[in-house]
Amino acid sequence: MDLTAPKHCLAIRVRYPEVDAMGYLHHSRYLQYFEMGRVEMLRAGGHAYADLERQGVYFVVTKAQVVYRAPARYDEVLSLETTLARQTLVRIDHTYRLSRDGVLLAEASTTIACVDRSGNVQPIPESLAQRK
Amino acid sequence: MDLTAPKHCLAIRVRYPEVDAMGYLHHSRYLQYFEMGRVEMLRAGGHAYADLERQGVYFVVTKAQVVYRAPARYDEVLSLETTLARQTLVRIDHTYRLSRDGVLLAEASTTIACVDRSGNVQPIPESLAQRK
Amino acid sequence: MDLTAPKHCLAIRVRYPEVDAMGYLHHSRYLQYFEMGRVEMLRAGGHAYADLERQGVYFVVTKAQVVYRAPARYDEVLSLETTLARQTLVRIDHTYRLSRDGVLLAEASTTIACVDRSGNVQPIPESLAQRK
Amino acid sequence: MDLTAPKHCLAIRVRYPEVDAMGYLHHSRYLQYFEMGRVEMLRAGGHAYADLERQGVYFVVTKAQVVYRAPARYDEVLSLETTLARQTLVRIDHTYRLSRDGVLLAEASTTIACVDRSGNVQPIPESLAQRK
Repeated sequence: MDLTAPKHCLAIRVRYPEVDAMGYLHHSRYLQYFEMGRVEMLRAGGHAYADLERQGVYFVVTKAQVVYRAPARYDEVLSLETTLARQTLVRIDHTYRLSRDGVLLAEASTTIACVDRSGNVQPIPESLAQRK
Repeated sequence: MDLTAPKHCLAIRVRYPEVDAMGYLHHSRYLQYFEMGRVEMLRAGGHAYADLERQGVYFVVTKAQVVYRAPARYDEVLSLETTLARQTLVRIDHTYRLSRDGVLLAEASTTIACVDRSGNVQPIPESLAQRK
Repeated sequence: MDLTAPKHCLAIRVRYPEVDAMGYLHHSRYLQYFEMGRVEMLRAGGHAYADLERQGVYFVVTKAQVVYRAPARYDEVLSLETTLARQTLVRIDHTYRLSRDGVLLAEASTTIACVDRSGNVQPIPESLAQRK
Repeated sequence: MDLTAPKHCLAIRVRYPEVDAMGYLHHSRYLQYFEMGRVEMLRAGGHAYADLERQGVYFVVTKAQVVYRAPARYDEVLSLETTLARQTLVRIDHTYRLSRDGVLLAEASTTIACVDRSGNVQPIPESLAQRK
């Protein structure tokens, strides 16, 4: 575990239409929470993703992996820890830990790639280069 | 009731993540079904909405009204009747009846307006003008 | 306008998957925001909707009406004002004003009815009776 | 590759609110499509998932892995191939290939576990045991 890796914490309250008939947060929604984790981590670093898009800088998810350990329910406040695990010229790997009151609900990782408006891979802008 | 008004029928099966913790189709989802009704009605008339967008023709919803009479549940096959109620130079009114095995679940109406890529109102293309 | 009607204000940031291909908050999502307004207004009054459900008290939407005035975009922080307009033994009417920086984006109203686990109408619990 | 493994094919048309501001099917939606693949495969085998739930048999996703190769867009008709890769007493592994006109868009795998109404793992019913 790299203790110097940039980390970000986000509290997310589970919304009613995000929960399925079992009363559980639907497993597809976790990916939307992880996206929120990335966006808020970026914002904490001084960048709004909406601005990046206006400048022609897009990120698309190319890989995702989730291990679901315990269900989350409607109205619970979850804690999402997002870690920037690795950054190359065009790709960023993140890992995620979603928990509730210290109980781990899910672990995940994603790879995002920087693309232009047409979907072609382009270098991540310098301004977003990972600080050492 | 105008018996000559264009009508379209669509069967929609309720998907798992569309259902909430009560086991009911979430009330926000009905608007997505009505949109599908409009899109498929357009397609039946020879127009793909995706093509219209590529030509700079967009439709935005400006008004919606829904009366929910009975719940729909996961995996049920619903029948959506979409009626083109009224068309002006820039707006189209639709009405909807969503039912299951002849039981009426919801009645609704919407107004959509034709806009360009920037969201400014523009005349509905001649090719979409309502046939008399 | 009843200046004594209970009101609640909620800030909501538009999420990426809530926005459609035009870049606009999808019109079906507004109903999900209004639901959040109702839930948070209830919470501000000391009641968690999740607890009510555990006690067999559910609310279902029986009517909804939305007028969309201007689009909302990804990552914008919107302000939702929820007003309890009227309460009977079994029904509550709310009205909503969604705005961004003082610009009104949408106005809406809903009716919700109190039902039991089987969907049968039941009286709203005394504890939720509107304070005068 | 096991040529005798049960396979199922499903055509899915991309809906408007499933697409994000880039015009791409949102990456979280793929998991919802895969779920539809599992449900329809089950139905083709004579079982309705809704009936299973009424009998107290639930399946929860415990693992998911997706590799996104190319974007899908609004209104495209995609082809989803679902394969039952492995079944144990309590778990089923599926793999998925999502394509459009022969072009592979995504590959994925999931593990689902059989649980009861309270979320406790239980054996998969005999009636669902994999035929040899």
